[in-house]
Amino acid sequence: MSVVLTRVHELAEIKEELAARDWFMGTSGNLAIKVQDSPLQFLVTASGKDKRKKTKEDFLLVDGEGNPVGATHLRPSAETLLHCEIYKRSKAGCSLHVHTVANNVISELYGDAGKIVFQGQELIKAFDRWEEDAELQIPIIYNYAHIPTLASTLGDFVKEDKGAVLIRNHGITVWGKDGFEAKKILEACEFLFQYQLALIQAKAGLLASTGALNN
Amino acid sequence: MSVVLTRVHELAEIKEELAARDWFMGTSGNLAIKVQDSPLQFLVTASGKDKRKKTKEDFLLVDGEGNPVGATHLRPSAETLLHCEIYKRSKAGCSLHVHTVANNVISELYGDAGKIVFQGQELIKAFDRWEEDAELQIPIIYNYAHIPTLASTLGDFVKEDKGAVLIRNHGITVWGKDGFEAKKILEACEFLFQYQLALIQAKAGLLASTGALNN
Amino acid sequence: MSVVLTRVHELAEIKEELAARDWFMGTSGNLAIKVQDSPLQFLVTASGKDKRKKTKEDFLLVDGEGNPVGATHLRPSAETLLHCEIYKRSKAGCSLHVHTVANNVISELYGDAGKIVFQGQELIKAFDRWEEDAELQIPIIYNYAHIPTLASTLGDFVKEDKGAVLIRNHGITVWGKDGFEAKKILEACEFLFQYQLALIQAKAGLLASTGALNN
Amino acid sequence: MSVVLTRVHELAEIKEELAARDWFMGTSGNLAIKVQDSPLQFLVTASGKDKRKKTKEDFLLVDGEGNPVGATHLRPSAETLLHCEIYKRSKAGCSLHVHTVANNVISELYGDAGKIVFQGQELIKAFDRWEEDAELQIPIIYNYAHIPTLASTLGDFVKEDKGAVLIRNHGITVWGKDGFEAKKILEACEFLFQYQLALIQAKAGLLASTGALNN
Repeated sequence: MSVVLTRVHELAEIKEELAARDWFMGTSGNLAIKVQDSPLQFLVTASGKDKRKKTKEDFLLVDGEGNPVGATHLRPSAETLLHCEIYKRSKAGCSLHVHTVANNVISELYGDAGKIVFQGQELIKAFDRWEEDAELQIPIIYNYAHIPTLASTLGDFVKEDKGAVLIRNHGITVWGKDGFEAKKILEACEFLFQYQLALIQAKAGLLASTGALNN
Repeated sequence: MSVVLTRVHELAEIKEELAARDWFMGTSGNLAIKVQDSPLQFLVTASGKDKRKKTKEDFLLVDGEGNPVGATHLRPSAETLLHCEIYKRSKAGCSLHVHTVANNVISELYGDAGKIVFQGQELIKAFDRWEEDAELQIPIIYNYAHIPTLASTLGDFVKEDKGAVLIRNHGITVWGKDGFEAKKILEACEFLFQYQLALIQAKAGLLASTGALNN
Repeated sequence: MSVVLTRVHELAEIKEELAARDWFMGTSGNLAIKVQDSPLQFLVTASGKDKRKKTKEDFLLVDGEGNPVGATHLRPSAETLLHCEIYKRSKAGCSLHVHTVANNVISELYGDAGKIVFQGQELIKAFDRWEEDAELQIPIIYNYAHIPTLASTLGDFVKEDKGAVLIRNHGITVWGKDGFEAKKILEACEFLFQYQLALIQAKAGLLASTGALNN
Repeated sequence: MSVVLTRVHELAEIKEELAARDWFMGTSGNLAIKVQDSPLQFLVTASGKDKRKKTKEDFLLVDGEGNPVGATHLRPSAETLLHCEIYKRSKAGCSLHVHTVANNVISELYGDAGKIVFQGQELIKAFDRWEEDAELQIPIIYNYAHIPTLASTLGDFVKEDKGAVLIRNHGITVWGKDGFEAKKILEACEFLFQYQLALIQAKAGLLASTGALNN
């Protein structure tokens, strides 16, 4: 049992930190952390809770199909299948799904292009890209209301043991070898998204001033 | 008395959380939670308090006309009639009124249209709209200085047991079956408003860059 | 002595709250609260402190000319004369000066006009303007480096017992009958400034989209 | 040893405060504080930690070449050489490097110009510039992936005992005679950057409205 308790503690800490940033607005978001590999078991947030609050019923243990392990009155998050997909297709140990204003706006703004690309940003190093001209691509997938379809669409982009996928107007899902790495990637993505939005506006603002001067 | 105390505790928790987000600027905002149905009695925030502070005089019990139940030196919020309207016209158990910069700007920006419409946003699910093409309409009403007129105007839009109405340059009023649902709706609305404002600016910014390139 | 202690406590609470909002960036800002009328004595923040920290040396007592009352190694804030001016020209009991990004940007944007005007905003009620068409004018004065000149320029606008004056690229100074009212006015101003900036950008953004559609 | 402990405490306090502002996104950022002059020894943040957490292994002592003093399993931050450069070229006692959205956007927006210039801003006084027409220049350098090259490029701009340098898309590095001054400068810069971005957008927004009226 001690591995489970350690993982509960680890995920609770992450939940508390993300809650402090208000990244669970309207009860959105769900978090998962792997407990064992074969058979696959992971902890996932219970459905319909206020994730700003800390209770003994925040997480439950599920199997590789997202079904509860053992008797429980808790229901796993409706989007548990997305976490299943990640653990099946990679060696990730933790996966996080959250909505922020910036990640949703970016997902809509670049949704038709199907991806957003960053280059020349120091924060890319959170993905272990260290070259000066390293490029980071974050795919943006369609937000299918049918969760199994959404999960399998996400699965097509789980090609490495850490990564990030935007779901159009439905937040971001990130994963990494453990809670530390998943959170690092989540933060780096949020930073890059906020940067991109602020840069677009600042550039347009400067352009407008210059244009006005030139007229 | 124990129902009252439970409700006091529930509303105090919500107040504390909204205060932490600074959603009571300039002593604005007021909160209510139903205690019993017949005759209708609900708790409402006392007038003229700093809602960032936690005291024993934060709330008082009022009846269906918004008058204090029992002797008290506290005055109910000047806008208590709006809460009365909600409890009379629906089965809501909690109603919240707060000012945020985003909700006020949205109320002005779309005020002439009388509503703002969201579609294709995951956060719409906070209103229990689950279809992929679900549409959410939030009405925007005129901000009558005369509170009974404002209350009855609001009342015309209280058609379901949960909902949200923007008052032009006067914040938002939301309601739900209990504190949990009312807060969920409040958060979802705030998220959608911030999203909308950020999207408008980002789109205009991209357009400006493209326009400049095409010239 | 007990009045002094009560006032120290009151001002310390305000300082703590404003610090939590990060309204003292770069050690900017200074706060004052009146202790007695004749002769005038008030508490003011000591110079060169990090106002995010709470110490026994945060405030000192000064007289109507801004000189320390009694022996102390503390120096009053360099801008103490502005507070003197307020207490001499009104019945205010508390005055607050803080820098925020929004108040500085507004002071620059409308600096040439010498004022910013708000109308139709609910938050105007923080200034006890209750009519539906109430108008709120906040003057914007030139930022003289010479503090006595700045103080006397400010003094010309201290016409009521509560109010607010923007100093161009130098924050806002507000006052009210006590700490509660001064803080209420400070918050209402900040809300209105953030609202104004967000509205300008949102309107321009919508205009750009519409313009693009019409071309 | 007591000087080391005092410095550890001082730097830990700064770390905690910057963490509360979320200025270490994606494990970015690193902090240093001088312990002694000859031979030079300073404390620096350990590599690969979550700087939001407070542990006994947050800092380690390094020498003038950035190598650990004494046996330790901790690795100094990969960018320790930048701090070495500052202590060698000035009498600074503390140096801080953090990423914020605003400092990164400013570094990109004005990167080609190689600097950003502020004038007429009260917050410039954090740099001890007191004249009414004081001008503050913050250089922006290229973000070399090769740390020794980056460090020596930064070194060319360490001309005073306090200062600030932006690294393009790689945050800001500031220094001052002690932790208090370094943090004051860091905050003033962040304020000025946020101000500049907000002003650019507000001016463009007003211009767009006026332009539309004139057409």
